[in-house]
Amino acid sequence: MGRFSSTSAIALLAAGLAFGAQPGPAVAENNPVDEKWWPSEFGAEDQAGATNYITPEKRLEAVQLVKQGKVATLGMQYHNRLPLFPGRTFALSIPGGGGPTHNLPWKGDNFRQTFMDELVTAEIGQAGTQFDSLAHPMIKVTGAKDLEDGNYFYNGHRLEDIGSPRGLSKLGPENVGSFFTRGILIDVAAQKGVDSLEKGYVITMDDFNAALEAQGIEDVKQGDVVLIRTGWNNLWRDNLEKSQDDVSADNAEFNSGEPGVAPEVCDHLAESKASMLGMDNWGIEPYDFAVEPPSDIESWGYCHANLVTRRGIYLMENMDLKQISDDQAYEFLFAWAPLKLVGATGSPGNPIAAY
Amino acid sequence: MGRFSSTSAIALLAAGLAFGAQPGPAVAENNPVDEKWWPSEFGAEDQAGATNYITPEKRLEAVQLVKQGKVATLGMQYHNRLPLFPGRTFALSIPGGGGPTHNLPWKGDNFRQTFMDELVTAEIGQAGTQFDSLAHPMIKVTGAKDLEDGNYFYNGHRLEDIGSPRGLSKLGPENVGSFFTRGILIDVAAQKGVDSLEKGYVITMDDFNAALEAQGIEDVKQGDVVLIRTGWNNLWRDNLEKSQDDVSADNAEFNSGEPGVAPEVCDHLAESKASMLGMDNWGIEPYDFAVEPPSDIESWGYCHANLVTRRGIYLMENMDLKQISDDQAYEFLFAWAPLKLVGATGSPGNPIAAY
Amino acid sequence: MGRFSSTSAIALLAAGLAFGAQPGPAVAENNPVDEKWWPSEFGAEDQAGATNYITPEKRLEAVQLVKQGKVATLGMQYHNRLPLFPGRTFALSIPGGGGPTHNLPWKGDNFRQTFMDELVTAEIGQAGTQFDSLAHPMIKVTGAKDLEDGNYFYNGHRLEDIGSPRGLSKLGPENVGSFFTRGILIDVAAQKGVDSLEKGYVITMDDFNAALEAQGIEDVKQGDVVLIRTGWNNLWRDNLEKSQDDVSADNAEFNSGEPGVAPEVCDHLAESKASMLGMDNWGIEPYDFAVEPPSDIESWGYCHANLVTRRGIYLMENMDLKQISDDQAYEFLFAWAPLKLVGATGSPGNPIAAY
Amino acid sequence: MGRFSSTSAIALLAAGLAFGAQPGPAVAENNPVDEKWWPSEFGAEDQAGATNYITPEKRLEAVQLVKQGKVATLGMQYHNRLPLFPGRTFALSIPGGGGPTHNLPWKGDNFRQTFMDELVTAEIGQAGTQFDSLAHPMIKVTGAKDLEDGNYFYNGHRLEDIGSPRGLSKLGPENVGSFFTRGILIDVAAQKGVDSLEKGYVITMDDFNAALEAQGIEDVKQGDVVLIRTGWNNLWRDNLEKSQDDVSADNAEFNSGEPGVAPEVCDHLAESKASMLGMDNWGIEPYDFAVEPPSDIESWGYCHANLVTRRGIYLMENMDLKQISDDQAYEFLFAWAPLKLVGATGSPGNPIAAY
Repeated sequence: MGRFSSTSAIALLAAGLAFGAQPGPAVAENNPVDEKWWPSEFGAEDQAGATNYITPEKRLEAVQLVKQGKVATLGMQYHNRLPLFPGRTFALSIPGGGGPTHNLPWKGDNFRQTFMDELVTAEIGQAGTQFDSLAHPMIKVTGAKDLEDGNYFYNGHRLEDIGSPRGLSKLGPENVGSFFTRGILIDVAAQKGVDSLEKGYVITMDDFNAALEAQGIEDVKQGDVVLIRTGWNNLWRDNLEKSQDDVSADNAEFNSGEPGVAPEVCDHLAESKASMLGMDNWGIEPYDFAVEPPSDIESWGYCHANLVTRRGIYLMENMDLKQISDDQAYEFLFAWAPLKLVGATGSPGNPIAAY
Repeated sequence: MGRFSSTSAIALLAAGLAFGAQPGPAVAENNPVDEKWWPSEFGAEDQAGATNYITPEKRLEAVQLVKQGKVATLGMQYHNRLPLFPGRTFALSIPGGGGPTHNLPWKGDNFRQTFMDELVTAEIGQAGTQFDSLAHPMIKVTGAKDLEDGNYFYNGHRLEDIGSPRGLSKLGPENVGSFFTRGILIDVAAQKGVDSLEKGYVITMDDFNAALEAQGIEDVKQGDVVLIRTGWNNLWRDNLEKSQDDVSADNAEFNSGEPGVAPEVCDHLAESKASMLGMDNWGIEPYDFAVEPPSDIESWGYCHANLVTRRGIYLMENMDLKQISDDQAYEFLFAWAPLKLVGATGSPGNPIAAY
Repeated sequence: MGRFSSTSAIALLAAGLAFGAQPGPAVAENNPVDEKWWPSEFGAEDQAGATNYITPEKRLEAVQLVKQGKVATLGMQYHNRLPLFPGRTFALSIPGGGGPTHNLPWKGDNFRQTFMDELVTAEIGQAGTQFDSLAHPMIKVTGAKDLEDGNYFYNGHRLEDIGSPRGLSKLGPENVGSFFTRGILIDVAAQKGVDSLEKGYVITMDDFNAALEAQGIEDVKQGDVVLIRTGWNNLWRDNLEKSQDDVSADNAEFNSGEPGVAPEVCDHLAESKASMLGMDNWGIEPYDFAVEPPSDIESWGYCHANLVTRRGIYLMENMDLKQISDDQAYEFLFAWAPLKLVGATGSPGNPIAAY
Repeated sequence: MGRFSSTSAIALLAAGLAFGAQPGPAVAENNPVDEKWWPSEFGAEDQAGATNYITPEKRLEAVQLVKQGKVATLGMQYHNRLPLFPGRTFALSIPGGGGPTHNLPWKGDNFRQTFMDELVTAEIGQAGTQFDSLAHPMIKVTGAKDLEDGNYFYNGHRLEDIGSPRGLSKLGPENVGSFFTRGILIDVAAQKGVDSLEKGYVITMDDFNAALEAQGIEDVKQGDVVLIRTGWNNLWRDNLEKSQDDVSADNAEFNSGEPGVAPEVCDHLAESKASMLGMDNWGIEPYDFAVEPPSDIESWGYCHANLVTRRGIYLMENMDLKQISDDQAYEFLFAWAPLKLVGATGSPGNPIAAY
């Protein structure tokens, strides 16, 4: 893909260049290379992953968090000026050919109904605010002792077995169910007193705990959706209003890296049995593509592998966490279900936080 | 568009043939031809429409409806076998070229991360489960006394003024906000004891009231989302599992007409200040394209014009109402927000009913 | 892909079901399973294939065939009513949003330039009139003695090596060059006195030679483009003018099989060093999907494998051969070059025959 | 479209800002504002335009120009790194989902056929090497004395009459026929001794005649295809091989303006009854978007209006004229026909020059 990639820095990532880094101890203990695949705690047939953590009791507790009757919508705007991961497309058009898209004969000649449609071509589950289904990240295993070669999704499903040109045969978002549960905001940017954390900044458990304490809320509980705010999406929040030069520069900066979470934070979420981690950056983990060799190679893809692929805990990227930050809404009912895009790798979304 | 339409019966509708029907009295009193445009009750600048009816108090009442901790997701599955309105496309592919869509260099040579994406080309806001934004239906006015010619959307916006090839400049779903409110199910199919109402069946206020009474719930209140079940979507609920011949026949039958609601039902929703009407058919109003001249011409497009265009009350089509019918969940918290597709004409969706 | 296929009969083919047929002798001698890959006669680095047969001398001879100054264009019309192979899309829209796609400020207020564009989503190299590049058909080899497992394209390139999600890294139509050479028409339908050969009809060398003789032209020479007419495309030639019901029925019939050429005809073209075989059916070889087990299994894919994959001799499908048949133009200058779609698997086209 | 445009300089053009320039005399005499629409010399029903100039005799003369048996293909490469006019898309993907796009059951278990397809979403007739059909440029007329308001295409067809969301009902490239005729190269860049003319450079009749003289060929004759080389496409000829930063910078420079032809050159081609003007820039006329107010406003869109819209003389942009320049091939057979994309506004292409 490298030769078609459209942003130079992130292209390193997209091109799949190996850096020769050795697995450190934290990774080694999760390393599947010498063992059987990590089985899902929800059973060999499970395709729903961590939404299994959300019980009726959990839902009844979550609605108690709605105290003011306020809501925030947590999706960013989708449009043709979105920053996109290299190689992806987002193209919205309005078919018309000079007039309405279609017409309804109605009530005589001078009073008719007409309609507009839109046509979108996009990696719709992997553009802008995006939910990664269990069919998105894989761990590629070659030469393992007891594991057949292949690209492994959650629960031992291999691309070689479930891949299909018009939608994967398993693990698509149609299997997820819903997130109707306690949501919490970990507002690291606010706790640090900055508009945005810096590119490459690694959010540690110390940061996580400092925010928890400052906010006065309880730690992650089973089934929670955990939202961590970096401020990084500020770079494109307003790009519909900007000049093209500004948009180009901001999108390039946005794609050139990001602040993100340390492996230990994802380990904490896994141990706490969170159902989802959502952030306001493009890819969860910290990156700074200008630094080579990357100092943060241990964190690359760590949460994708250890949350999604191994445990079925979901990720949601490019969320809009500004309003709940402004409202200091740290605990809320999180209500959302992905589109039932059969065999897709993700879903766009606009979740509701109610508080 | 007629010559490209892909289903013969519904093509009459798509082709925009005039039938010469005269406006009857119920329509005449809403007829804008001889008067000024119907101004929005939410002000001349409003682009949000009937979500304005949903107040903080309303939201706090709505969460009280969650009693069992159960949820249902109300979206149908999206895939390449969807029945589509003539001329529309839904094409999901998995780019790969024989392998993963992209790769992440990670942890040495025999342990890497790989990823799949999906690529969708679709009238994404007007395919399958679809929410009509205020930028979808228009009333075309020509030769009116005090009204400039044009295709009028909600609140007097004309296509001629806000049309744009890459997204309309006003009224897109990014302006809607959210539906976090009381939802009610009017289960007409269950009340009639049928799997599905017949094509062309007109749901009257008598039907509506009979269902209300049988279900033992209160009538529509301001800000409610009202879901009316016909059973018509049963024709494609299972079409991923069917042979192609069965899918083709069922989709053709699905598109050949539908049961729907009488004008008086939409008038009732308008008077009650509902925020949305959702149904499990493709287009809200009743049609039977085999009957010519159509006996139901008075109802064609009535709700689109009188709810969406004139009052900003939203419509949602092709919803999946089976589970809430099975669960006899007649009152619930309805939680959903459309995708912020800037300048689009609608949004796909998978709303949550919690009860 | 089977569960998304859109035409029942051809779905057998698309679904990739194995029929357990054994290789017969004609195939066995070409069978790569027990031997090294068939090397290209044009060298190990070659990506151009049989256009190498077309020399400057050949071109100078070919222009001598233009005697009347007449031309025919050999492409069918592309539009949203095309018959498509299961799973493929052809969707043309005109973005406008109610007006022109874009504008040019020009010459004051009452005299401006405006423009329309079209937006197409399609397997553009594999829809309607289509040229198969060397990156389209593969032979999948597993368990061969001296050959690594994989999907093999022309000249030993494997999908596993040159696959890429945004265009294959070798063998795309940008490498083909051009066809400016002698073209001949083998008008089997005319020689048989029928509008169209029947579905499943197998064109033999006897048929081929009978047509040659009746037409009074010389046999295939090195570098020639050979066009064989079956009449099968008559089923969709006029479908822009037809009712939707007729289009649906005709497209289904078109996809349910086709007349095509016997292996011996393709062997003859290979020995004669033709540069391309073009036909007016969808897939070159004969099929009748209603017959099971298929009587013609030996011919399935034979020409794709033995012409394209093994020898780099090109195929072009869904050509419009009606005018040259009507004109009895059996020998002509064939002038055409595929679009330089980098890394694509084919190209649309509208070749010129000049005579 | 302005708010979605993706290149700042060219956005002025795309946004349709008026500059208040007054029509000068050369334009005024062509100005349709006060007169009837310019009727086609080929009759009121004509949709083919200037290919009518190409007679059988012309074709027979043209083949005499093939003397060496050499060919050049005149299309640039199409890929995801193309420079695009603001708002347009070119996205090629290879559907596979981890393996081949589809399979053919064949010859037992260890010897099967498999296939790859490509999926393209693009303004396919208006991206890269592009032929403008008569359905692309319009003159918008408002308030003219004897002419109804509207966007006028060739031969008096208005967008308001022939517009349609899935393809215009007239003037698409399916009506063009073919260009099999004398082609001439006017190599202005070579005559000036430069790799590329400068942005905004206006090619005059003096330049045109100087090149003709230097090249020793006869002037334009009826039916000729005239190709004028500027060198401007050098900016993206090699961008598949470049780093992303270089591609971005070069594409931005490419879109920021171009050398082009003066109105007098287009007048000369019109008088000479050429069938097509092809160039190696993106838009025929000269632009330099950094100069404001533009000094060349008289030339903006002049050829589009006066060749295509008024006379049906075609334009082809982004052609690759390097090889014929290198070969000093100034006279040749030009052989090409656009794709029969019904109702489209243009066509991609890869014409052949044979000499």
